[in-house]
Amino acid sequence: MQELNIVKIGGNILDNPLRLKSFLLDFAALPGLKLLVHGGGKIASAIGQKLGITPVMVEGRRVTDAETLELVTMVYGGLVNKQVVAQLQAQGCNAIGLTGADANSIPATKRPVRAVDYGFAGDVAGPESINVNVLEALLQQGLTPVFAPLTHDQQGTMLNTNADTIASVLATALATKYQVKLVYSFEKRGVLQDANDNNSVIPAIDKEKYRQLKEEKVVSAGMIPKLDNAFAALEQGVSAVVIGDAAEISAILSEGKAGTLITL
Amino acid sequence: MQELNIVKIGGNILDNPLRLKSFLLDFAALPGLKLLVHGGGKIASAIGQKLGITPVMVEGRRVTDAETLELVTMVYGGLVNKQVVAQLQAQGCNAIGLTGADANSIPATKRPVRAVDYGFAGDVAGPESINVNVLEALLQQGLTPVFAPLTHDQQGTMLNTNADTIASVLATALATKYQVKLVYSFEKRGVLQDANDNNSVIPAIDKEKYRQLKEEKVVSAGMIPKLDNAFAALEQGVSAVVIGDAAEISAILSEGKAGTLITL
Repeated sequence: MQELNIVKIGGNILDNPLRLKSFLLDFAALPGLKLLVHGGGKIASAIGQKLGITPVMVEGRRVTDAETLELVTMVYGGLVNKQVVAQLQAQGCNAIGLTGADANSIPATKRPVRAVDYGFAGDVAGPESINVNVLEALLQQGLTPVFAPLTHDQQGTMLNTNADTIASVLATALATKYQVKLVYSFEKRGVLQDANDNNSVIPAIDKEKYRQLKEEKVVSAGMIPKLDNAFAALEQGVSAVVIGDAAEISAILSEGKAGTLITL
Repeated sequence: MQELNIVKIGGNILDNPLRLKSFLLDFAALPGLKLLVHGGGKIASAIGQKLGITPVMVEGRRVTDAETLELVTMVYGGLVNKQVVAQLQAQGCNAIGLTGADANSIPATKRPVRAVDYGFAGDVAGPESINVNVLEALLQQGLTPVFAPLTHDQQGTMLNTNADTIASVLATALATKYQVKLVYSFEKRGVLQDANDNNSVIPAIDKEKYRQLKEEKVVSAGMIPKLDNAFAALEQGVSAVVIGDAAEISAILSEGKAGTLITL
């Protein structure tokens, strides 16, 4: 099986043009097949504010009303995605920007209204709903897919979808065709033994170690869903998951010398 | 050679949700290989106004300063493009939204400053600069490319490019691989004998007829560049060019019963 590296970058890089440029330079230089998933960043809120759209967050998630859906469709799917694609192209990486609507790559459904109405938030049923063949065709053409955190409902409406979810569902789906390594980039250098010391990276965590770390309360509440996601991806066939700093992407992927490697 | 239909739609449809929906229904139902190019529409100006960006037009073309470039990148490449893609997907047409940066499909150069500085306006050198192989690969995957009127300079910057130009350069480039029919859609039913009578469509114009029409001042100043472009495309290998109303796209393409057919 061919190797495929999937990297998810978040707002902390997207909001900083110099860090973004430096990351894209490193990412473009990575050998082999690769795929990038980007989040949103503060730019959507900043543009939304100018347009008179006030962000509503419930439990850390943006509530996507009709106006906000237009906002994120244009900012994530247009501004951020195309700037990332253009910069990768400038580095000789043949990037192609996608949302889940493009080539019907990630069909989703509007999240059912329960305690909270998240509006136009898209849930992906699972890796089996991903259109793997079209992604394989793009990769075999030498293209590097760059995903914005958007999906669609197959009925004409775009949906706002969490970038971590998109990265993990793509990784799991593509694990049927490739040996997939998934990197969640993050504002710290990895999972830290001491939250205040960015040099206290735990190099590797398996299930037993994770159980210990939770017992000792070393991993924070914010890190637990990331780690749970990572283990879920591994259980569904992803070869390796690394949590680390995007600034160290080459060390993480080419040398295995940075970040926290999650294994079963 | 396989047939490929390339359709360009402009602002008059994009600005009207019902007309757009109706057109996309018809377009999705067209048999065979196809490609859509869309313009911008008034939505960019409307959003720009809210953001405090005043459109500056010189000789009918938008001057693209840095702020306007961000605006059109998000509105054309994000909002308009993804809404069109999602609606086509809902009709079972496997659309994939692209700008010229994606897959380096349309490299361009920033227009040189002469009498007017158009800012971040992109000029395409010619059909030979189009990345035909990647478009062919997408079409052979059963995908329908949907182009926003944006290109890139291969140095990391997006560029604003006229949709008519994109449609004609793509048609010419793809004519090396396919039997290409190019439809310029338009707010009238075709080239009219009497500008005030939308039923006075001239069914066909060849070079000799065009010379006559110009002599008789039947064709307006606004129509001359469109017709010149059409003849240029035909001279470079495009099989047929039709100018007509997007509302009649099925009649134009499936039956050849609407619009003005331009031939050499």
